Amino acid sequence: MKLGIVGLGKMGYNVALNCMDHGHTIVANDVNESAITEVEKEGATGVKTYAELVQALEAPRVIWVMVPEGDPTDESIRSLSEHLSSGDIVIDAGNSNYKDTVQRGQALKEKGIALIDAGTSGGTDGARHGACIMAGGELWAIQKVESLFEEITITDGYLHTGEPGSGHYLKMIHNGIEYGMMHSIAEGFELLEKSSYDFDYESVARLWNNGSVIRSWLMELTQSAFSKDSDLSQLRGVMNSSGEGKWTVEAALENEVATPVIALSLMMRYRSQENDTFTGKVVAALRNEFGGHSVVNSK
Amino acid sequence: MKLGIVGLGKMGYNVALNCMDHGHTIVANDVNESAITEVEKEGATGVKTYAELVQALEAPRVIWVMVPEGDPTDESIRSLSEHLSSGDIVIDAGNSNYKDTVQRGQALKEKGIALIDAGTSGGTDGARHGACIMAGGELWAIQKVESLFEEITITDGYLHTGEPGSGHYLKMIHNGIEYGMMHSIAEGFELLEKSSYDFDYESVARLWNNGSVIRSWLMELTQSAFSKDSDLSQLRGVMNSSGEGKWTVEAALENEVATPVIALSLMMRYRSQENDTFTGKVVAALRNEFGGHSVVNSK
Repeated sequence: MKLGIVGLGKMGYNVALNCMDHGHTIVANDVNESAITEVEKEGATGVKTYAELVQALEAPRVIWVMVPEGDPTDESIRSLSEHLSSGDIVIDAGNSNYKDTVQRGQALKEKGIALIDAGTSGGTDGARHGACIMAGGELWAIQKVESLFEEITITDGYLHTGEPGSGHYLKMIHNGIEYGMMHSIAEGFELLEKSSYDFDYESVARLWNNGSVIRSWLMELTQSAFSKDSDLSQLRGVMNSSGEGKWTVEAALENEVATPVIALSLMMRYRSQENDTFTGKVVAALRNEFGGHSVVNSK
Repeated sequence: MKLGIVGLGKMGYNVALNCMDHGHTIVANDVNESAITEVEKEGATGVKTYAELVQALEAPRVIWVMVPEGDPTDESIRSLSEHLSSGDIVIDAGNSNYKDTVQRGQALKEKGIALIDAGTSGGTDGARHGACIMAGGELWAIQKVESLFEEITITDGYLHTGEPGSGHYLKMIHNGIEYGMMHSIAEGFELLEKSSYDFDYESVARLWNNGSVIRSWLMELTQSAFSKDSDLSQLRGVMNSSGEGKWTVEAALENEVATPVIALSLMMRYRSQENDTFTGKVVAALRNEFGGHSVVNSK
């Protein structure tokens, strides 16, 4: 298949190489010209505009978009669609909010263009050698790209999840689960750190990866992290987030589902981003008000 | 090695078979006579009393105790120790509270007997074919049983975790992490169940086990559960617990460590055990008091 790729970041670039490994011809575009030059060295055809990209492909076209969610994805899909025609397929393999996906899909459908939401997991290594793809979309479009999905994923690592939006919804939930699992692992190691025992964290993670109930890819990554920095003293515990955890909690609120573990995983990330909190000031002030308890003064 | 085993439940029975696979001779005891008969068929020598068990072994003796935590473990170790002598080793491979372990170990140490706390993970299949063992204990005793531990565990599935108590502490934290991971996975599937999409949960779990970030043994067990009952309609969501999650939260309180995710995983298990709550009645009554909001009357 001759395939367009928009977005040659860490994920898109590796997907391009993965596709070429399976005999596909790639026409690639990125806002960053050096990324285009790089992928050209690997055998892809680089193009600088969407018009050129679309012109280089034969109808019905398939274009893989893998750019940051929100405005960049909006802008890419909208601009691309101006050059596309009925029967073409756009795959959004980024981490878009499923509600945006549904709206974008409806706009494209009016022109006869299909939007497939391909939630992609497994990191850059997965993108390169075998990703996990959860794809929502209309059957006619899915059928045209299903063999591609099967080639670039690991065995059983591709699923047509249902109607448009379901792929990004599932990817969002996947990431919500990931937040909770990561925070569970992290709290456990904090309880080792604060105990009276002297554990070697890399050894503990390795042990837990071999035969224990909590063996997992995240525990393997934990082992890898401790192998490089035995007590993580080289970094601060500031936990950023990129949106999917927040959307998961929004979905929980919308459907009135109790998800305290995923919600607290997210809230603790927010807490970690502040050196001090107004909550803390208010509670300290109140303890002082009613009981004369001492407060820690700001410098 | 000629080895005593006390406790032929699901775990101890499989450990006995695992040890015999590696050429060890087993003298086994259980409160249940039919369990003794069963293991005799597999080649072990069954005994009905601790006196016989100890007499059948040569000093220095090694006795593997795998009985329920609390009184049964207390009773087994205390009674056994009356027949043991200096240089003997008792392995507590159950899920004992690490504080009990430290106390029991001190009592045994006065008689020159070592207590090794061997936290064991991996379920019955692990016990049979390759467990994960986190063992605390004094070096002289550990050195005598280390080759046994290495034989009956999976590669890299054994670690000497440090001083007595550290093995059970680590097993407790392992289970605390397990609570959080399980609840994260479960909340994610509830968000799929309550969504407007129609997901096949077994397919989703299989997908997530192949290349995704959250691939894990727990997700494999999730896949297995959905393969038997596609929407788990055959069971109620009552989540029991056996102690280790509670102890993890107790350790968090004792060391004043913020562990909201593990704590909430535990609290939600408690919530699941009640059909109605007094909390719910109080909040409903208060909403009615201040705002006249309607309440649901008990039948």
